[in-house]
Amino acid sequence: MGLALRLAAAGTPVTVGSRTATRAKERVGEALERWSGRDLRIEGNHNEEAARCDLVVMATPWDAAVATGRGLAEAVSGKVVVSMGNALVRVGDEFQPVTTARGSVAESLQASLPASHVGAAFHHLPARMLASLDQDMDCDVLVCGDHPEALEQTRQLVASIPGLRPVVAGTLSMAGAIEAFTGVLLNVNVRHKARSAIKLTGL
Amino acid sequence: MGLALRLAAAGTPVTVGSRTATRAKERVGEALERWSGRDLRIEGNHNEEAARCDLVVMATPWDAAVATGRGLAEAVSGKVVVSMGNALVRVGDEFQPVTTARGSVAESLQASLPASHVGAAFHHLPARMLASLDQDMDCDVLVCGDHPEALEQTRQLVASIPGLRPVVAGTLSMAGAIEAFTGVLLNVNVRHKARSAIKLTGL
Repeated sequence: MGLALRLAAAGTPVTVGSRTATRAKERVGEALERWSGRDLRIEGNHNEEAARCDLVVMATPWDAAVATGRGLAEAVSGKVVVSMGNALVRVGDEFQPVTTARGSVAESLQASLPASHVGAAFHHLPARMLASLDQDMDCDVLVCGDHPEALEQTRQLVASIPGLRPVVAGTLSMAGAIEAFTGVLLNVNVRHKARSAIKLTGL
Repeated sequence: MGLALRLAAAGTPVTVGSRTATRAKERVGEALERWSGRDLRIEGNHNEEAARCDLVVMATPWDAAVATGRGLAEAVSGKVVVSMGNALVRVGDEFQPVTTARGSVAESLQASLPASHVGAAFHHLPARMLASLDQDMDCDVLVCGDHPEALEQTRQLVASIPGLRPVVAGTLSMAGAIEAFTGVLLNVNVRHKARSAIKLTGL
């Protein structure tokens, strides 16, 4: 929901999907109530309707991304689909990376959606930071993808949000490294009671 | 050699190891010539002698770390050994992470040195930046390890170098994510003709 809010706040009309339209409308209603002073073009609907948008972001829990994507394969055919999930499990106090059969959530999603082009981005942004519209951001967002169109549309999506700088990192072969690194950031946050994000210096 | 120079420049006496004392002395001689204006307590010797130091940093190419470490197991027994290698291969224009049997260079090194405590650090620092003593640094260095002593000694080693801030990220289970992320940074550097390093914001 945080990313949807940031996009809407930047002037992009957004449809938030959920398994049922009722659930989606409820969640969007709560968000609009919280940010009632703002003019946000955001609505809720079932996943099938949300998947009709020009660009689709898979913002499910990471282990639901492939199943959800597969169910929407026809609606997202020929489009760019953005993966933002991180394959992590909690082991005691620590978030540890796990490797999916294809190497990462993004690669698994691409494998399950051969008629779509997957771009990966937004992995390192703390959800709470994204959802706090009154908090300024200053973060680098690593972007990867196998197809030029996926890279370009994902890059533009990132750049449309104030405070985020897209940094292209390569093909989907880099997605595993980017997703796993979210575990590092989460652990740093737990240990340092912080909400850390990354900036690349020297760019 | 870059890390050795930075440590020596910060006042730490360093012995640089190599397979032969001659080769090590040659390399150190070249470095001292380049930085002749500085008072650097750095010398070269064979690996067995270098491994007698209180703290040992494995700065070999990543795929030589385990074999080299195993050969020095007795000398480093009971000590902290710092792993800084990144398990990466070049595929076309891209550096891609590979997973060793134990998950990472650091975990493989720890498995091969059961009587030592491995700390991992320094992965993301461009070698050329480290070796340029007249270049100021301002980087975060992620540190991980399974043993409190490994974490603490590695953290102190990082903190002893001006411009580097140690950030503890957890156990050696995080090493794979940290090493793989070096591939992301290298690709960003290739694409953007830069020498990027990371800073964590919000800490």
